[in-house]
Amino acid sequence: MNRIDLNCDLGESFGTYIIGMDERVIPLISSANIACGFHASDPLVMSNTVVLCKKYGVAVGAHPGFPDLSGFGRRNMNVSLAEAKTMVQYQIGALDAFCQSEKITLQHVKLHGALYNMAGKDYELARAVCEGVRAVNRDLVMLVLAGSQMKKAADDLGMKAAEEVFADRAYEEDGSLVARAKPGAMITDEKFAIERVLTMVLEHRVTSASGRKIPINADSVCVHGDGEKAFVFAKSLRKALEESGINVCAFGTP
Amino acid sequence: MNRIDLNCDLGESFGTYIIGMDERVIPLISSANIACGFHASDPLVMSNTVVLCKKYGVAVGAHPGFPDLSGFGRRNMNVSLAEAKTMVQYQIGALDAFCQSEKITLQHVKLHGALYNMAGKDYELARAVCEGVRAVNRDLVMLVLAGSQMKKAADDLGMKAAEEVFADRAYEEDGSLVARAKPGAMITDEKFAIERVLTMVLEHRVTSASGRKIPINADSVCVHGDGEKAFVFAKSLRKALEESGINVCAFGTP
Amino acid sequence: MNRIDLNCDLGESFGTYIIGMDERVIPLISSANIACGFHASDPLVMSNTVVLCKKYGVAVGAHPGFPDLSGFGRRNMNVSLAEAKTMVQYQIGALDAFCQSEKITLQHVKLHGALYNMAGKDYELARAVCEGVRAVNRDLVMLVLAGSQMKKAADDLGMKAAEEVFADRAYEEDGSLVARAKPGAMITDEKFAIERVLTMVLEHRVTSASGRKIPINADSVCVHGDGEKAFVFAKSLRKALEESGINVCAFGTP
Amino acid sequence: MNRIDLNCDLGESFGTYIIGMDERVIPLISSANIACGFHASDPLVMSNTVVLCKKYGVAVGAHPGFPDLSGFGRRNMNVSLAEAKTMVQYQIGALDAFCQSEKITLQHVKLHGALYNMAGKDYELARAVCEGVRAVNRDLVMLVLAGSQMKKAADDLGMKAAEEVFADRAYEEDGSLVARAKPGAMITDEKFAIERVLTMVLEHRVTSASGRKIPINADSVCVHGDGEKAFVFAKSLRKALEESGINVCAFGTP
Repeated sequence: MNRIDLNCDLGESFGTYIIGMDERVIPLISSANIACGFHASDPLVMSNTVVLCKKYGVAVGAHPGFPDLSGFGRRNMNVSLAEAKTMVQYQIGALDAFCQSEKITLQHVKLHGALYNMAGKDYELARAVCEGVRAVNRDLVMLVLAGSQMKKAADDLGMKAAEEVFADRAYEEDGSLVARAKPGAMITDEKFAIERVLTMVLEHRVTSASGRKIPINADSVCVHGDGEKAFVFAKSLRKALEESGINVCAFGTP
Repeated sequence: MNRIDLNCDLGESFGTYIIGMDERVIPLISSANIACGFHASDPLVMSNTVVLCKKYGVAVGAHPGFPDLSGFGRRNMNVSLAEAKTMVQYQIGALDAFCQSEKITLQHVKLHGALYNMAGKDYELARAVCEGVRAVNRDLVMLVLAGSQMKKAADDLGMKAAEEVFADRAYEEDGSLVARAKPGAMITDEKFAIERVLTMVLEHRVTSASGRKIPINADSVCVHGDGEKAFVFAKSLRKALEESGINVCAFGTP
Repeated sequence: MNRIDLNCDLGESFGTYIIGMDERVIPLISSANIACGFHASDPLVMSNTVVLCKKYGVAVGAHPGFPDLSGFGRRNMNVSLAEAKTMVQYQIGALDAFCQSEKITLQHVKLHGALYNMAGKDYELARAVCEGVRAVNRDLVMLVLAGSQMKKAADDLGMKAAEEVFADRAYEEDGSLVARAKPGAMITDEKFAIERVLTMVLEHRVTSASGRKIPINADSVCVHGDGEKAFVFAKSLRKALEESGINVCAFGTP
Repeated sequence: MNRIDLNCDLGESFGTYIIGMDERVIPLISSANIACGFHASDPLVMSNTVVLCKKYGVAVGAHPGFPDLSGFGRRNMNVSLAEAKTMVQYQIGALDAFCQSEKITLQHVKLHGALYNMAGKDYELARAVCEGVRAVNRDLVMLVLAGSQMKKAADDLGMKAAEEVFADRAYEEDGSLVARAKPGAMITDEKFAIERVLTMVLEHRVTSASGRKIPINADSVCVHGDGEKAFVFAKSLRKALEESGINVCAFGTP
């Protein structure tokens, strides 16, 4: 039977500051990427988010980012390989404490923001991060951009990797995302976006911005939960997937 | 055979900022309390310190503190019980990632600074913290001030606790430390300090500031590594212990 | 002619995190207390908030707090007097840069959260903070809790002080606020709250929780802008004040 | 009469963490670049450092950096122009509070670390920062790398700029510094380094790494105070300058 994972970044509130609508989004998804206190979140938010994921049977992943709270981890930082490796290890350990506390298993690691983008293109950085994750726990799945250097690094190290695709982004012929600055980078027609996802899941291909059909592997679709519109789209996407006979479940599910 | 643990706070450097002489102190002790990034330390320092402890066979413990880097965790903060519990869980998880990476077992948790002092006197706070630790991993030993509320909370929750004593502090008749502000609070005569420790370890008692012999349980002696004088004292203490036939080893050693 | 100031805490967003509805509240008030980056805000938010205040002719004040972003400056911290003094100086200087940039004059300083509460009761702390402010700029007005130790310290140092009152809080017979934990501490009837404010402004007295009429000096009324309800109340209050012939203007206005 | 300024980065300690030997270095220099709390320092350190500078008649400058305490401001961060501008404004305002408190005038602004390097090469960034400084106080002098984009931006905006040179760095033919990674980038022979400085000050030229004599303007020489060797070199340099009849004084001195 066809299956797909829906993942979403969650647990991004911080102290008095609230972001997202986690309680509404969690029931729609199968895997949660929980911020770990460096670019967003704090220990209490992390604990509460893990509890919420457990309640709805959503698999938990760590979402480590740069130590840049004021920039929400979206600003490139030229950290050393040793810094990148250990800051990822630190954050997954921190989140794992709450998983252990709730007696659930940490499923995966997905890098956040600028760290995700940088490691997706820089093999050396990707490899340092993956080595760090593997050293801590070799059962963790790396949730990565389909076709990225993170996928290659995880493969080279013999680690499990799940590839994610985006419903709202156009693709180049080489399978990379069209840069946001380029025209047509974002797909705004929701019906079209959903059809694309169905094709990616069922036929393992997508039409590039240039009009060619290219192969793509989709283990997970990234959805957003930071606004009413994103929420409604996620709901429509899940409905369409289920109506097409596609089972929405975490990629770590046997 | 008589035995005692020597513990020391380590891994307190932060980025470019260096504190302590960890490489010299680690060979002298049997248990290390490693800062976890809230009041001191960073991921790279934590990783390096764990590696060093492993090299010398020193048991590793987490040393969680308040999120107060500029105050080094020494300023009381009135956090909520839920905040205290989750900030401790977060920090022990973060350190445990480096232990897992080095394939060693996290032995214990010792609170730092203001959090140590506050939880030592406040049963509710002590219990919240202990519950948090137990939920993450019930094999962790709480390293606590002998006779404190932390000891009581750990006992009440069925957790293992090791009690620490201080070579350089005077004791009240009830077993609590004489407040630093009071005259005679600090013991500066090193020879006398070492004799006191031997008595505590071998005879399970200490002479209070008022002159009475009171019972005390010493599983571990806290030594300092932040200066030449402290280092020399730790060396003398270790020598005196060994010459008295007392085995210096981690309290977690079977 | 009767006059009163309306002050509100503003500029509390931080990076991606948004708090408050500053654009809607600013036109209603006469003095803004702008967070300075320790408990909330960041340089860009501060700059934008000063620009907005200038646009609407609202006087600008610094709102320094504890270095506790995750606790929003609401957790007591036992900083030293020298730390308290210099952290306030630092924050007012930082905000003043944006005032200078916009060619407006910084009007006042109002402490935030736990620092406000602690200094309101602790004369030594209040005096250290006031001395710090005076050393930087002796024209700055201290905006303080009516009848507090901050008022006394400012008076003793020959500084200008404006006293603020609360529409939604009950008062003890000695002029202090009824502690939030006590029943009846909060006044929830909006009509009654507005009448109280009018009495405070026009007759310089208020009825205490115990039913006695006590004298009170009101230079400014603190309003809130962090929710629809607070916003509507502020609007009603302003309308009531104006209909009673009371001029709403900044206390620093000649 | 020939004159030159000697500048040094100071006030880089943070809380319990001590860096540098400010008390010994300050008597040797004429201008201090004081860290402002983003990459190093805290309010109490800033206050104490300003007091020390005043005591020795050393001119005070702000040394703003990236908000990256764990990286000491040495890691490139891709902040927006508005963020760069306002974070510099914030930091110079913060330091100015302590100058006002001590009744001395803030002389200059010198960017720190990665921000210094990035703005030295990126005109747009340099201009945004300079505009920010000018808006706050147009009397502030920009202390910049000789021949850099910061110099150009300051000139274009009609701001005063002082150019600094390095005793221990080799220069390319275009007047830029030889990248640290290249062989010969660092000049380690102290006698040779001092002679070079004398030539730069007296003859306004330097021999490039390629062996050509190139023109250079030296308003200030950057010295370091973070180690015994650096301290001894600074002392020798000052002695050599004075023996050559060169007056060591702050560039802001009339």
